[in-house]
Amino acid sequence: MPDTQMPTARTRVVREPHRGVYDREAVYRILDEGFLCHIGFVADGQPFVIPTSYGRKDGNLYIHGSAASRMLRQMQKDAPVCVTVTLLDGLVLARSVFNHSMNYRSVVILGKAALVDDPKEKLIALRVLSEHILPGRWDDARQPNERELKQTSVLRVPIEEFSAKVRTGPPIDDEQDYSFPTWAGVIPLEMKAGVPINDAKLDPPRVVPEYLQNYSRSRTL
Amino acid sequence: MPDTQMPTARTRVVREPHRGVYDREAVYRILDEGFLCHIGFVADGQPFVIPTSYGRKDGNLYIHGSAASRMLRQMQKDAPVCVTVTLLDGLVLARSVFNHSMNYRSVVILGKAALVDDPKEKLIALRVLSEHILPGRWDDARQPNERELKQTSVLRVPIEEFSAKVRTGPPIDDEQDYSFPTWAGVIPLEMKAGVPINDAKLDPPRVVPEYLQNYSRSRTL
Repeated sequence: MPDTQMPTARTRVVREPHRGVYDREAVYRILDEGFLCHIGFVADGQPFVIPTSYGRKDGNLYIHGSAASRMLRQMQKDAPVCVTVTLLDGLVLARSVFNHSMNYRSVVILGKAALVDDPKEKLIALRVLSEHILPGRWDDARQPNERELKQTSVLRVPIEEFSAKVRTGPPIDDEQDYSFPTWAGVIPLEMKAGVPINDAKLDPPRVVPEYLQNYSRSRTL
Repeated sequence: MPDTQMPTARTRVVREPHRGVYDREAVYRILDEGFLCHIGFVADGQPFVIPTSYGRKDGNLYIHGSAASRMLRQMQKDAPVCVTVTLLDGLVLARSVFNHSMNYRSVVILGKAALVDDPKEKLIALRVLSEHILPGRWDDARQPNERELKQTSVLRVPIEEFSAKVRTGPPIDDEQDYSFPTWAGVIPLEMKAGVPINDAKLDPPRVVPEYLQNYSRSRTL
């Protein structure tokens, strides 16, 4: 696959085109830092947007859910979907209300989702999903059994038609506003993990494993 | 408006129905804690999901953007939209891979967006959007002028057909898994604000205003 994707008319960033990113590796870095996506699909003409977790392996995004899920069943109908991942990095406070903004990195992928039929790929995909969110956890938990695998559907969305949009840096004000008497700058925002909470049913008590200590989503930055 | 909404066939939570929330005030609390939504709309049969900020006033959600924005223009065509807000509260680590989950609160609103024509409502909506993200900022920044108002479109999405889905609490494992030798519990996740970064062009230097100190999105919890 090419390192840099030519955007299509549907994925080209039109507003603020200088914020458009079409480099595959840069898009992967955003996808690998996040783990929550919002998937859009259409049912009876109505768009639905549903949050769900995902994992990435090479040029594919995997999502999973109950085999009975309305979303997953709808998405298997060879219908177009949109997968969007957004990382919020900060509030941008300009002197003028109009120039207020946010710092963010977002990826939009257009495509079709396909059901993963092959049991080997399915198991790999489930591991990818798990390790994407929490590296080290898969091997430390009870593996899925046949019944659970049957109850779970895994879908593959190829990362082919995509773009990212990225804003970084300070506010950009109109020249005549720089003298306006107010504070201006950026409030950084970050998804932070708190102290792990032991399940009350942990018996005997166990120490928090190393892969959970100092858990941070920004590790790929 | 009724305090509790009867879900429609489209908004009723089908998977894990006990996590469905249809109480208007509970939904407002989720909407008021978040400020980033993902909006789904359809163009030429393709769903698009775009992240954007929002504000709420009573039973309406407001979004805004450039009057030239593809999304805003598409959404004015009396076409159905979906607005989804997701707050991520934690990773839920069960003993089995299968029972891993997340704690979250998400709201889905289905409806149509209407362009706000009335200049008074438009200015109120812009203030609502600003104050929703950062209370106190509007009065401390340079107000929008005629040119900026003309360049900005505001859309109103009535909060009429909606539902929320909420997961809280510890992992729920199968009975026979509780003896599995691994750690189990919850890693809390929270969007945290860092130390405000002064714009390099702040001249003279200004103190960080009170409404920015200890900025937190969980203030409404």
